[in-house]
Amino acid sequence: MRIIGVDPGLNRTGYAVIEDRGGRWVAVEGGIARTDPEESLELRVLAIYRDIREVLEELRPEAMALEELHSNYEFPRTAILMGHARGAVCLAAAEFGITVTGYAPSRVKNAVTGSGGASKEQVQRAVVTQLGLASPPKPLDVTDAFALAVCHAMVARSPVARVK
Amino acid sequence: MRIIGVDPGLNRTGYAVIEDRGGRWVAVEGGIARTDPEESLELRVLAIYRDIREVLEELRPEAMALEELHSNYEFPRTAILMGHARGAVCLAAAEFGITVTGYAPSRVKNAVTGSGGASKEQVQRAVVTQLGLASPPKPLDVTDAFALAVCHAMVARSPVARVK
Repeated sequence: MRIIGVDPGLNRTGYAVIEDRGGRWVAVEGGIARTDPEESLELRVLAIYRDIREVLEELRPEAMALEELHSNYEFPRTAILMGHARGAVCLAAAEFGITVTGYAPSRVKNAVTGSGGASKEQVQRAVVTQLGLASPPKPLDVTDAFALAVCHAMVARSPVARVK
Repeated sequence: MRIIGVDPGLNRTGYAVIEDRGGRWVAVEGGIARTDPEESLELRVLAIYRDIREVLEELRPEAMALEELHSNYEFPRTAILMGHARGAVCLAAAEFGITVTGYAPSRVKNAVTGSGGASKEQVQRAVVTQLGLASPPKPLDVTDAFALAVCHAMVARSPVARVK
């Protein structure tokens, strides 16, 4: 079983794939899909879509954990633009028949550290421990994508959570 | 020259294609891409993408006028979800090499009726007149998509506007 975590953004979309090896989750790959801010919106959305498709094609995860966009952004315009990126990621998943589950950032933090208000560093340490990494994931900002994947792995493992 | 106007929404995405016939714009086709609210978000985004791709493939417009999402929604969540639909439409356009231009609703109203605060009925009458239609477009809610296309046709025709 492979899970991909995706933290969507118009500038940078982080992704991370983890795999269940006999009951233990290990990191397979993490990376960032970047877009050129000078490009038009439609070409940037296309770039995200193509990058994520490529990852899905190569690594074939069975489930996707996607960061939920919260609706209390200070700049709603940013949230709407991020919605474009999230739409492109959803679309790529649907084309591969991958089920998408959305998780709010606080829920992810709570699942991996036990506290919904955990700091970036705490999340990082938790991801390193849970995936048995020798050092924090690189690039550093794929940590959130790994945390999303780990969160989904925990939910999928828990019979109580599965019922919800 | 063909222009497609698109009014994106997760439930209903209206589209309308107009064509320049010797200096006169005429309606080619209008329609609605509907999604099933019972379906998952990713399957709904995929449905919009596929429907719009089909329209682009069949009618081959050279330019797309896409409604700009304003950022003062009462419900930011709705705006973010609409961003997903808009992302899927942008993506389809980019795949066909179609340039996308965003227009705020008030700008469209102003272009077709002369008033940014025009009513739905005024916009409808203006579209009927400008495209020389015998009756209002059907289904009725593709009117906004036709208005977007007409707005873009006017901007493209005006050398002053082109410089902006």
